[in-house]
Amino acid sequence: MGSEVQIKKAGIVSIGNELLNGRTVDTNAAYIARRLVATGVPVVGTYGVPDEQGAITRALELATGQADVVVITGGLGPTDDDVTRQAMAEFLGVELELHEDQLAKIRGFFDRRGVPMSVNNAIQAHLPAGARVIENEIGTAPGIEAEKDGTVMFALPGVPAEMERMLEASVLPQVRELARFQALVTRRLKCFGAGESTIAAMLGDAMQRGRNPLVNCTVQAGVITVEVVATSTDRDQAEQMAAKEEATIRRLLGRLIYGQGDQTLAEVVGERLAQLHQTVVVAESCTGGLLGKLITDIPGSSRYFPCGWITYGNEAKTRDLGVPPELIGTYGAVSEQVAGAMADGARRNADADFALAVTGIAGPDGGTEQKPVGLVYIAVSSRNGTDISRFIFSHDRSLVRLRAAQTALDLLRLRLGI
Amino acid sequence: MGSEVQIKKAGIVSIGNELLNGRTVDTNAAYIARRLVATGVPVVGTYGVPDEQGAITRALELATGQADVVVITGGLGPTDDDVTRQAMAEFLGVELELHEDQLAKIRGFFDRRGVPMSVNNAIQAHLPAGARVIENEIGTAPGIEAEKDGTVMFALPGVPAEMERMLEASVLPQVRELARFQALVTRRLKCFGAGESTIAAMLGDAMQRGRNPLVNCTVQAGVITVEVVATSTDRDQAEQMAAKEEATIRRLLGRLIYGQGDQTLAEVVGERLAQLHQTVVVAESCTGGLLGKLITDIPGSSRYFPCGWITYGNEAKTRDLGVPPELIGTYGAVSEQVAGAMADGARRNADADFALAVTGIAGPDGGTEQKPVGLVYIAVSSRNGTDISRFIFSHDRSLVRLRAAQTALDLLRLRLGI
Repeated sequence: MGSEVQIKKAGIVSIGNELLNGRTVDTNAAYIARRLVATGVPVVGTYGVPDEQGAITRALELATGQADVVVITGGLGPTDDDVTRQAMAEFLGVELELHEDQLAKIRGFFDRRGVPMSVNNAIQAHLPAGARVIENEIGTAPGIEAEKDGTVMFALPGVPAEMERMLEASVLPQVRELARFQALVTRRLKCFGAGESTIAAMLGDAMQRGRNPLVNCTVQAGVITVEVVATSTDRDQAEQMAAKEEATIRRLLGRLIYGQGDQTLAEVVGERLAQLHQTVVVAESCTGGLLGKLITDIPGSSRYFPCGWITYGNEAKTRDLGVPPELIGTYGAVSEQVAGAMADGARRNADADFALAVTGIAGPDGGTEQKPVGLVYIAVSSRNGTDISRFIFSHDRSLVRLRAAQTALDLLRLRLGI
Repeated sequence: MGSEVQIKKAGIVSIGNELLNGRTVDTNAAYIARRLVATGVPVVGTYGVPDEQGAITRALELATGQADVVVITGGLGPTDDDVTRQAMAEFLGVELELHEDQLAKIRGFFDRRGVPMSVNNAIQAHLPAGARVIENEIGTAPGIEAEKDGTVMFALPGVPAEMERMLEASVLPQVRELARFQALVTRRLKCFGAGESTIAAMLGDAMQRGRNPLVNCTVQAGVITVEVVATSTDRDQAEQMAAKEEATIRRLLGRLIYGQGDQTLAEVVGERLAQLHQTVVVAESCTGGLLGKLITDIPGSSRYFPCGWITYGNEAKTRDLGVPPELIGTYGAVSEQVAGAMADGARRNADADFALAVTGIAGPDGGTEQKPVGLVYIAVSSRNGTDISRFIFSHDRSLVRLRAAQTALDLLRLRLGI
């Protein structure tokens, strides 16, 4: 079913010493790859290089040699170790040229903050001769667009917020235009509540290699993403293929699927609560605010989230949530009983429709044979009663906490019939 | 001052379609880079390639061409899309060879689980002729060690837990031996409270390119890391060079430096509170639990963090923290007055030494001309009084929230004299 058209391909070059000494994980490359693939352009290679002119020009040569579009990030800052623009000029065989309008913009950026512009920042207004400016609305470094031997290069700052905005506003529209004769339709289903191998087994033949649509699974922080990629020269046909595959997968996975695209558990739960005009509050011990944070990550969450209590110590559990000290004395703070009392207390205090309570042992210390690190009780309280579940989550403190907070949201999701 | 010895260098090749479609962030490369650099071997390039034999051999060629050590991850699984061992054989110009002892080990792995071995798994016992096995204690895929033209290649599985164990147990000892005549000492100073360009300007000449020690700056989520890398053939000398440079930088940056290595603001604040036997509580509006989450990320935080209040709605601010409704009515929930009352109320409730309160407009909606998105008030309350500061943080919801929570911790740090 392969296309007869020459498929346009992309390469990614990430620049920065911090990437090569391992202090920074290159999340930019993954973001750019995901967005390029969604645009219909597969990524054939990524290159990570230090802030050195020679290394950068070599990577540009390699990347442009195999791709029609090359997205470059990093090395556009104002300091001496930022040499991407110089390397691009060398690779293009041209000099750097001052763009007066950019210099004025940079100066304005500092003026508005009442801060004098450092002389260093002037370098950011210099671009390789013949290159075009990619506007940066939130930082001082403009991006650079240039072409060599039929390959278009887009250089963007390494700061993720700036890179993402500029990619979306200026780069992807051009990439879409370049790739207008190829269609690659992607659907993503988000699942929670089973491991990757269980989900792979449930999908069976659907995950066979070489199929079109191609189905693959990835796991990140407990959320499994099942991705369907349908390829065709015709967008309508690709859409139909993807839709058919999605229907099959939805049938196989049922309620393990909580959402689609980039939806988070907090988002789907929040949307439903807002629709129902209902509210949820939280009572957190071992998650220490993380559950509230996940809920309030969502814009507009004040419609359904009035408040929460971080009752990390036992005194606060009693004082703020009315958990009887005897209950803590008899069963321990990490117990079914205390989880239930925390949730009920929080719901009553706030007169809310739902309350989620989490108490557990996040580790690394504090575990016993009876109550090991990773043991977490989660309670969901509503006017119809309180359900309490016991879990043992594994690995480190941050994973135990994240899994506990996500599972609380998932229990509420199932309770809301999503 | 450069060393006369030829410095051994490393390259990293990451293999897997999931890396090139952006569904998985390549954290392995950062982990490997960090460990290689700690061993004294700088990483000169990283390559990300799909599960395709041609692409892999090409990356091996590029990486071995510039490095003495190449660490490869991914593509050693049992399924048809795993072709790293075939690509290595092709690159080495040899055939694959069955290792009977490995086959027995893999079979044993399945027997112990009472699961029949899939016929696919037999491929994992095949290595390029002449290559050595790198034992995998926790999975079925052995690693592969081979040499070509003086460069040593180590291929490891992509599963992080397996890769990390094998790297530590089998790869790094050999790399240390290879690099025994070179020393690379790294110091990292963590700074908060000024932008990257301000810090670069304060450092001045210290950041000049080509110096040894080399000094560079990176920024991540508002925290600036100033890294010093000293290179020498002699470890003691490298240590001395790094120490001297660190002293200079500490003099230049003063209290902008809050810590070193991988320390977070929450960590240094927590350590000091624990030393002083003092406590802090939080009252969060726009951060919705994030500040509590950052504090409780630190193991042992229960020693100094008893509790917090997520008073997202106005009612909770009044009910739980005693903020007078008139105050909210007159000045608005996002005001100096309300921030101060939240902090004072929280501190009194919990009888704590310090309370941090955050109230602001995280966006994307809810801003006005008077009170724009990004406006945040932060109060630090103690027995000696309450300080309230006003900030305008920029960019998106998640950045405004993170910057607000970090700044609250930073204000407490300065108050604690760190």
